[in-house]
Amino acid sequence: MKKLINNPNNVVEDMIEGYLNAHSDYVKMIEGESRALITSRETTKNKVGIVIGGGSGHEPAFLGYVGDGMADGVAIGNIFASPPPGPIQAVTKAVDKGAGVLYIYGNYTGDIMNFSMAAEFSELEDDIEVESVVVTDDVASAPKEEKEKRRGIAGSFLVNKVASAYAAMGYDLQEVSRVARKTNEQMRSMGVGLTPCYLPQTGKPSFEISEDEMEIGLGHHGEPGVEKGKLESADKVTERLVNDILIDMPIENGQDVVVLVNGLGSTPAMELYTVFNKTKHMLDKIGVNIYHSYIGDYVTSFEMGGCSITLLVVDDELKRGIDYPVDCPMFVQKGRA
Amino acid sequence: MKKLINNPNNVVEDMIEGYLNAHSDYVKMIEGESRALITSRETTKNKVGIVIGGGSGHEPAFLGYVGDGMADGVAIGNIFASPPPGPIQAVTKAVDKGAGVLYIYGNYTGDIMNFSMAAEFSELEDDIEVESVVVTDDVASAPKEEKEKRRGIAGSFLVNKVASAYAAMGYDLQEVSRVARKTNEQMRSMGVGLTPCYLPQTGKPSFEISEDEMEIGLGHHGEPGVEKGKLESADKVTERLVNDILIDMPIENGQDVVVLVNGLGSTPAMELYTVFNKTKHMLDKIGVNIYHSYIGDYVTSFEMGGCSITLLVVDDELKRGIDYPVDCPMFVQKGRA
Repeated sequence: MKKLINNPNNVVEDMIEGYLNAHSDYVKMIEGESRALITSRETTKNKVGIVIGGGSGHEPAFLGYVGDGMADGVAIGNIFASPPPGPIQAVTKAVDKGAGVLYIYGNYTGDIMNFSMAAEFSELEDDIEVESVVVTDDVASAPKEEKEKRRGIAGSFLVNKVASAYAAMGYDLQEVSRVARKTNEQMRSMGVGLTPCYLPQTGKPSFEISEDEMEIGLGHHGEPGVEKGKLESADKVTERLVNDILIDMPIENGQDVVVLVNGLGSTPAMELYTVFNKTKHMLDKIGVNIYHSYIGDYVTSFEMGGCSITLLVVDDELKRGIDYPVDCPMFVQKGRA
Repeated sequence: MKKLINNPNNVVEDMIEGYLNAHSDYVKMIEGESRALITSRETTKNKVGIVIGGGSGHEPAFLGYVGDGMADGVAIGNIFASPPPGPIQAVTKAVDKGAGVLYIYGNYTGDIMNFSMAAEFSELEDDIEVESVVVTDDVASAPKEEKEKRRGIAGSFLVNKVASAYAAMGYDLQEVSRVARKTNEQMRSMGVGLTPCYLPQTGKPSFEISEDEMEIGLGHHGEPGVEKGKLESADKVTERLVNDILIDMPIENGQDVVVLVNGLGSTPAMELYTVFNKTKHMLDKIGVNIYHSYIGDYVTSFEMGGCSITLLVVDDELKRGIDYPVDCPMFVQKGRA
């Protein structure tokens, strides 16, 4: 393992300190809560608060996505570990403007437990109405009939994007939650892992894989995938991933989709664009139109090699959420003209 | 070597096709010139054209930096190889609006030869006035007295940023060139390499390094650095890099700088922010103020591990260039309020 770090037990603190030093015009720490950041900009009264969070090591997710047009606050866990209820509750209190708060997080046992407890405490102790949307986009992690058991992977970025746009536009908690759930429902992801990442504290690889192998459906923390096999060409791998998505969620001729090709950390842009290119060809063939594309490192696992493809079927409502401008430290998008 | 590619001899074409398929609202290919992309947006009459380019494998550089507020066109070479004069001349002709064209490229033998030939042909055959600014920011690559021999590394991003802003603001070729040269003069970079990248066609690593070593001053294509040694803590490595810069270009108490912490490809954001954090502490100590920071993968070498630090001393003129809004496929910046 080779990393530019100091004390391995302090890597999250070092990152957060650097992040705050770089982006104090965007974010600030909640006093006394070193793992709770909120936007440092004025937010509208009565705006629904958007709270995200999860383990560290997935940057830009999650802390990079607090800013104008995205989340209002983030609770930051240890490496690949959920934040405890404390910082989540603190963020909730800090971002509530009287219109309630929406939690968006991936479907992991620890996150569910801690975000649920924080929601309960926030309602009981702070009198804040909290809704939660648990992201379940990873097709590989459970069969179709058990979609609610699926892991949340890169798609959490899109749910955050769309929900935050609706919150910024002034919609109420029920509407923002509904649009967030709809985004999750109309979205599927499939990933492939090529090389592991190394955990700073242990120095150990997140999973074992041979020099000529890939693992289809591998989780962001090294959770086993659905199939290990010889690494194939980008086109073949893309065919597999896109077909698995289309079998799970048929998309009709004439429908519009948002495509997210997400690098896991060390995958060069050249490869991500190659994967996107094949995805485009496949969608062209079935008459599916790409409304918008995101290609890059959106939800990573340190320096893991590989990528995931996410398809989100968008109607006019979701397009509005996608189009909304964003200004975050690690993600900026101009509004659609 | 593990890569999501198809035919290794076709990786640049696959990338460009995917890029054009994703970003046709930003860029288009010049007819008959498969390695020459220009902005697809209307540019102002009499605007100075900005042309960039270089070898592939450094994405987002260079093709990702064509767009509003950045370059008008890019000539794309093979992997780590300069584009030939043909596409450079084609881009020059396509982006010239009657106000002349500025070339910005790194100080490499091939680039110098090809961009110089393209400039000559453009002037002779197409009657276009061309200026060139050769970026020489890498402190490690030649002694101070021979700055003109230094390689251009991540700093090319900043020269492009500032010069393109001045071109967009309507300044003439002499002024835009002067500001670009000034940016290059007031800027220094130092890098460290941890792990090599693998070249798609050969499958070979770009350089050899042991499991516990780092190489200070290593070039973007594996050119030898100034010192190989045991990998140290992020703080120690940062101290070394920043001190080498400050020895070469003393920065005074009260001056403002732009800091660019550039990941080489596989370096997690967590590490880049840790390096930034130490840089900030060091600058604080000598009373130097950070005006703006860029932290992320701006000029890479595929999946190389490591980073570089660039310091650019900015006065009001350069600040204006830094502040100008940008909208490119791979880099978006909101204007400063």
